Amino acid sequence: MSGLQRDPSDYKTHLLKASGALRQAIRTAEHSGMTSGLAPGLVQGNVVILPADWAGDFLTYCQNNPVSCPLIAVSDVGNPALSGLGRDIDIRHDLPEYNVFRHGELVETTTDIGALWQDDMVAFVLGCSFSFEDALQQAGLSVRNIDMGVNVSMYRSNIPTVPGGRFHGDMVVSMRPFRAADAIRAVQVTTRLPKAHGAPVHLGDPSLIGIADLATPDFGDAIELRDGELPVFWACGVTPQVAVRNAKPPICITHVPGKMLITDLLNAELSIL
Amino acid sequence: MSGLQRDPSDYKTHLLKASGALRQAIRTAEHSGMTSGLAPGLVQGNVVILPADWAGDFLTYCQNNPVSCPLIAVSDVGNPALSGLGRDIDIRHDLPEYNVFRHGELVETTTDIGALWQDDMVAFVLGCSFSFEDALQQAGLSVRNIDMGVNVSMYRSNIPTVPGGRFHGDMVVSMRPFRAADAIRAVQVTTRLPKAHGAPVHLGDPSLIGIADLATPDFGDAIELRDGELPVFWACGVTPQVAVRNAKPPICITHVPGKMLITDLLNAELSIL
Repeated sequence: MSGLQRDPSDYKTHLLKASGALRQAIRTAEHSGMTSGLAPGLVQGNVVILPADWAGDFLTYCQNNPVSCPLIAVSDVGNPALSGLGRDIDIRHDLPEYNVFRHGELVETTTDIGALWQDDMVAFVLGCSFSFEDALQQAGLSVRNIDMGVNVSMYRSNIPTVPGGRFHGDMVVSMRPFRAADAIRAVQVTTRLPKAHGAPVHLGDPSLIGIADLATPDFGDAIELRDGELPVFWACGVTPQVAVRNAKPPICITHVPGKMLITDLLNAELSIL
Repeated sequence: MSGLQRDPSDYKTHLLKASGALRQAIRTAEHSGMTSGLAPGLVQGNVVILPADWAGDFLTYCQNNPVSCPLIAVSDVGNPALSGLGRDIDIRHDLPEYNVFRHGELVETTTDIGALWQDDMVAFVLGCSFSFEDALQQAGLSVRNIDMGVNVSMYRSNIPTVPGGRFHGDMVVSMRPFRAADAIRAVQVTTRLPKAHGAPVHLGDPSLIGIADLATPDFGDAIELRDGELPVFWACGVTPQVAVRNAKPPICITHVPGKMLITDLLNAELSIL
């Protein structure tokens, strides 16, 4: 894309070309790293794959917790395609890395789940904070984890989620540091993206939501908090992985935190206002 | 107003009856106290009255600082009516109490300025945070100063304003305490009211904006900050009174902080989104 004026269709064509190449690199395991800051402008997704007889409970859990689990797509039973999110997506190969849970225990990480796929599996895709990181940057704000080239810091909070069937547990949150005026702007910008966790759930003192030490995140990398900055916390799509540990389905496959599904949807297509 | 269903026109008629009675009580000096929490649903205004040869500079100052000085009406020169804000408003009598500044010094407070009015005077009305207090309450949030029945806490900050002609100075801010999740909600709610100062300008550590001690506000009353609460700061329409002290016009008349002009405009008429 060059020049100051964009043809909207050219803009999307350009992004889709980039996302297609990126997904191909992920499919061939050429890229197995985090996806934060990659494919800017396009929606990234948290993924949860469950057997069909666990799908109803999980749908209820998402419905009950739309901020941490903003559902954007559900596959047909046994079908690894998600045509609503991208014409060529095959959920068995298109994540950089997968977590495999059996009876609630993380037993394996792998870059491909072709060998694990079952005819009764259903894939759920949830919106992700990486969508609003792009919106924050477009609003002129600095996103520390992207600037540092590391994964975002994620923590288990003590904010309870609403149980859905057998799924229950506390909310996982992601944290980005901002000066107060930028934190206020970040509330405004991310409010526009309810399908990517929307506005923050907390800011300021981490102990108020059960986080003892910001320097030791439960997932992702530690991010420096500088003088005059507040930690700002958003609900995170890793929340279902805690609920899966509690529900203990025979098998559940998720993305590895920070290594998301790249879709063909524009962030702007998910945004309101 | 009774019953759960409102006729919109009845709603406004009801509010105008209440505001008319309140303005009458103020006009006769029967009410000379603060107006926070009074006339809920209706826009209240900060007032600045200046000689016409200072009006251009002040308009520029408002234009340069729309967050602290959100101009909602300007009178004709020498005309104490403000028909756009309320049919019967007479700015000489309709504030509970006035500050009179001469050459930048506060020399007098009075409940009526009929004797001080000059043929060359222009009245400016700026939106006020009391409009968004009503919106916050309607969103289910508690506003401490209203709950306590006291004036809001206001402080001189070290946030500079943009000079306009002879007017210049630092921003005055009002403070309300909220728990973090409510502070985030308050950002969303007040963003809808840019003509009533809009979103907060700061939250958290007061020293970052030059406030040494929350317990000793420069204007208004002290408000208790409870465990787990953040102070949230909004730009305040007392900012021009600091600029007037710096500009030193021969005469300037303002409202006394917390004692505002009650208008006939609905807060909802000023709100966006």
